[in-house]
Amino acid sequence: MTTEEFKKEFEARRLKVEEAIAKYLPTADTRPSVIHSAMRYSMEAGGKRIRPMLLLAAHDMFPSKVDPLPACVAIECLHTYSLIHDDLPCMDNSDLRRGKPTCHKQFDETMALLAGDSLLTYSMYILANEYKEYPAIAAGLVLDLAHNGEKMIYGQVEDIEGERHVKMTPEKLDYIHHNKTAALITSAITMGIRLADEYDEEKLKVAQEIGMNIGLAFQVIDDILDVTSDDATMGKTTGLDAQNEKMTYVSLYGIERSREIAGELTSKAIQLCEKLSSNCDFLKALILYMQNRIN
Amino acid sequence: MTTEEFKKEFEARRLKVEEAIAKYLPTADTRPSVIHSAMRYSMEAGGKRIRPMLLLAAHDMFPSKVDPLPACVAIECLHTYSLIHDDLPCMDNSDLRRGKPTCHKQFDETMALLAGDSLLTYSMYILANEYKEYPAIAAGLVLDLAHNGEKMIYGQVEDIEGERHVKMTPEKLDYIHHNKTAALITSAITMGIRLADEYDEEKLKVAQEIGMNIGLAFQVIDDILDVTSDDATMGKTTGLDAQNEKMTYVSLYGIERSREIAGELTSKAIQLCEKLSSNCDFLKALILYMQNRIN
Repeated sequence: MTTEEFKKEFEARRLKVEEAIAKYLPTADTRPSVIHSAMRYSMEAGGKRIRPMLLLAAHDMFPSKVDPLPACVAIECLHTYSLIHDDLPCMDNSDLRRGKPTCHKQFDETMALLAGDSLLTYSMYILANEYKEYPAIAAGLVLDLAHNGEKMIYGQVEDIEGERHVKMTPEKLDYIHHNKTAALITSAITMGIRLADEYDEEKLKVAQEIGMNIGLAFQVIDDILDVTSDDATMGKTTGLDAQNEKMTYVSLYGIERSREIAGELTSKAIQLCEKLSSNCDFLKALILYMQNRIN
Repeated sequence: MTTEEFKKEFEARRLKVEEAIAKYLPTADTRPSVIHSAMRYSMEAGGKRIRPMLLLAAHDMFPSKVDPLPACVAIECLHTYSLIHDDLPCMDNSDLRRGKPTCHKQFDETMALLAGDSLLTYSMYILANEYKEYPAIAAGLVLDLAHNGEKMIYGQVEDIEGERHVKMTPEKLDYIHHNKTAALITSAITMGIRLADEYDEEKLKVAQEIGMNIGLAFQVIDDILDVTSDDATMGKTTGLDAQNEKMTYVSLYGIERSREIAGELTSKAIQLCEKLSSNCDFLKALILYMQNRIN
């Protein structure tokens, strides 16, 4: 797959995801409209839709007639709830997200709290409702998303404890990366596999390993970009890790070694994809794109 | 069923629910322990466990070998998350809940927010994980709990809008009661039915109607108790509705008529139970107990 082909395919798929978000989320005028407006405001704030894209790419590996788009919307709902709650005053107290006012700045704290709760609840509702004809798939998707949604919170908790000067260690940093970032990315891969007509536990295990490698690479690269990029490119304040003397891959291992680690994780993920299925061209290109991203 | 028999059975079942909560929730020392301590703190604060009790009683109507207790814990997790978030400073800003410090007072706002998120997520995880051998049941339970969990938020939103002096109407009050309180109580009944070996959509509809009647009666009685009871009996501040000039069943229809309405809703629920199954003795006794509760 050439870079040109990848870019074209990426954009085509991203548009499908945007359309699915518009379709499966209640319209902004659904009663009570303030909460649905807040949910849509944050869901429609854009971004690269990395998790849905990974889910679609994983689904490619074992294609089935089951529509992956509702699952894409569900995982994006869960991701977006976590951003809304992370931005709240009692968490990061952020005013801006992707260059726009955060949900609680645009609406208010109460509605942002409830919009987050609602997106989390709705992520599960979409899975149970849209896959009700395939209850085994529905139940498996809920299991993955809820399990990894839990892990995300655990990672967040230890991250906060680290900021509050509980002594950080490389082991704690690994725990945070595994849980806060990599868990949900892992579920994107396993959910894609669960949509297949048939899969076995062995395949699911490999899928988990792929997801974990991609997720860890994603976080290492995030740590690098916080040092090497700028606010305009990233759409958020950079340099915060160093300013807060936060332990990161970069502060532990330096930029060069961090880049090597990200490269190793990426290669491992790609190797595992090839082991799992020959229909992995787009997924491999997507993993490389994620490694080389600049924001 | 005599009052004595009911009380004994109620207590035996309540203890089973408490044991199930202890069993299915991660222990307080599970990493990261602060979040699991906060989850358990709020889950173990007691209360009558009305929703799990209703679920067990509904399960009696069409008994099956499927264990209803994980579903009981799931619905209580969802209920408890809503209490934790309702108590937060940006919501009701409550310091006490059942005579104990609220979650954010005992821990802090950040951990209370995350403990709520975690209980909501965990409610879905329990259903998907504990019923994985029965995927159709798991998916149906998630559908009910997520659907009604959404409605609960919608009711909460219009309730808040009412407090912020959006003009209240009897229609809005009905919407709030249907969604904020009655929806989750409805799911207790339908989830109990979904655990049966067999049920049809017709039975599920009757179950929904039973739940809605019980839930509305529950809210009308809550409105009455806010006027007629006292802080010590209720374990919370009473008289707030009148103080805030809040529209309630009592302010609209008076205490006498409100009692009649609660009685009518209760009778209707009991009639429907008898229509649905002859195994409804405990459920009927529970519904009457809820009508006559003093706190």
